Amino acid sequence: MKSLLTHFIFLTLSFYMSAQLSLAERLGYSKSDKLLIVHADDLGISHSENHASFTALEMGTVSSTSLIVPSPWFLEVAEFKKIRPDADIGIHLTLTSEWVNYKWRPVTNAESLVDFNGYFFDNCDDLENNARFKDVEKELKAQIELAISNGINPTHLDIHMGCLVYSSIDYFKLYLKLGREYKIPVMLTYGGLPEEYKKVIKNEDVIIDNVYSAGAQHFDQEGGLAKRYTDVLTSLKPGVHALIIHTAYDNDEMQHLTIYKKYWASKWRQDDFDFFTSQKFKQIIKEENIKLITWKEIGNKLIKKE
Amino acid sequence: MKSLLTHFIFLTLSFYMSAQLSLAERLGYSKSDKLLIVHADDLGISHSENHASFTALEMGTVSSTSLIVPSPWFLEVAEFKKIRPDADIGIHLTLTSEWVNYKWRPVTNAESLVDFNGYFFDNCDDLENNARFKDVEKELKAQIELAISNGINPTHLDIHMGCLVYSSIDYFKLYLKLGREYKIPVMLTYGGLPEEYKKVIKNEDVIIDNVYSAGAQHFDQEGGLAKRYTDVLTSLKPGVHALIIHTAYDNDEMQHLTIYKKYWASKWRQDDFDFFTSQKFKQIIKEENIKLITWKEIGNKLIKKE
Repeated sequence: MKSLLTHFIFLTLSFYMSAQLSLAERLGYSKSDKLLIVHADDLGISHSENHASFTALEMGTVSSTSLIVPSPWFLEVAEFKKIRPDADIGIHLTLTSEWVNYKWRPVTNAESLVDFNGYFFDNCDDLENNARFKDVEKELKAQIELAISNGINPTHLDIHMGCLVYSSIDYFKLYLKLGREYKIPVMLTYGGLPEEYKKVIKNEDVIIDNVYSAGAQHFDQEGGLAKRYTDVLTSLKPGVHALIIHTAYDNDEMQHLTIYKKYWASKWRQDDFDFFTSQKFKQIIKEENIKLITWKEIGNKLIKKE
Repeated sequence: MKSLLTHFIFLTLSFYMSAQLSLAERLGYSKSDKLLIVHADDLGISHSENHASFTALEMGTVSSTSLIVPSPWFLEVAEFKKIRPDADIGIHLTLTSEWVNYKWRPVTNAESLVDFNGYFFDNCDDLENNARFKDVEKELKAQIELAISNGINPTHLDIHMGCLVYSSIDYFKLYLKLGREYKIPVMLTYGGLPEEYKKVIKNEDVIIDNVYSAGAQHFDQEGGLAKRYTDVLTSLKPGVHALIIHTAYDNDEMQHLTIYKKYWASKWRQDDFDFFTSQKFKQIIKEENIKLITWKEIGNKLIKKE
């Protein structure tokens, strides 16, 4: 009885303390630390994307990546993971195939998720207008399972193009549920979340302070993406943040894969690669005293408690 | 009544004459003409393969191509066909996904045709040991329909890696049946066909005299593939022949797509491209008086009778 009481007091205290501590503190850092996940999306879509992202990971300047499981080059990422078991690779849950002349299909027989050619729709609206919940749930689970069965051991979940989960509370709940089921963090921040979404977040869910990325206006501005990233880094506040980028080489494969698109296309991805493998980037994070962290570290410390 | 009798006599005579005439003669050429289809396989698998094949087609030194419909770059081929409606593109009916780190899936929910990851098996043996006839029939029809609905208007059918149709009479019959149904020729020659296979060929089926290709021994021999092709061309007999090649650029995309493979891999495909776009090739076909023809011409003259 005494033991049970002690246990109860300990749990209550832990809960109370963790509710009071910042995420940085819960991770073992100080409240004033600036912690950043540099997160390269879209692994698997091309050899160009894979090789550039592997290179940036190995240089240590990209700290985390996420993988499009239905993509044609998926197994090249699984092979890389075998060679580099510590590489931080999450699942970029994917329900769209957005390029014009290059396509992928669902990993399940998900009839409500595909266009007349059997490819995922190329935009979130068509997806939202057609998707049946059961098909989405089955497909997303299958993507995670496929990654696991190929040795990926995903460090986190996030959503390709932000489709569905930010337009419907049911899909948002599914997103959270998948993270809890597989005991891995989902990429999530409070900024911009409607109140009803915030209400379904539980204490066990990891919420980071900010998710940054570049937009079309940054690509077009003077100084381009490098200026955007420099601005984000030099104004970063203490806390736990993610910065979403896309690293690939601006080569023949990538130029034709992203044909007819200007934003998030081949040149954009080369700019991302160039900036995040540059001396300038290393210098900024040193000067700003920014620590690069991984999703794996977050999952291990707060969810798996290894 | 007289008209009906005339019609009957005409039909009988046509049948008798066509049975006696060589294929070259039925096409309107002389019996002594050397007619050759230079046939580039595997369109759709990569931008490298597509671009090299489009280039060789436009140069007129590759006369026909065939397309892997389930491949990721399928729509790039459909787009090319819109720009070049006369391009000779058939369907490379595909039931395998043979590369190591780069994969495609069936266009139907064909459970008996896929491995544990949902990709086509990577070899003919696994396919033959698992395939259910109904799944194969449905998948192959779906590939043809998908090509048609995307504007391909296929000029012929042939089989990727020769799987199934040459190991089982039922699949061979299916192959013939698909050609008859869609009123397009299937690539077929008598050489090496077992007697029971020959028996199911009907008068309406187009049988060409020879189908040539290069094998591993030619890649390894002194003079390489160029020597093989030179040998084939300089010893070509009168008749209607096809020469199967694979044109792509030996670049980063293709090297990693074909990783761990020596034969039919990146360097091989560059050698094919180099030879079939060379002055030497043009000179040989001029000297040998070889006429390049297309599957479209065969289909139009003998099946569609346009």
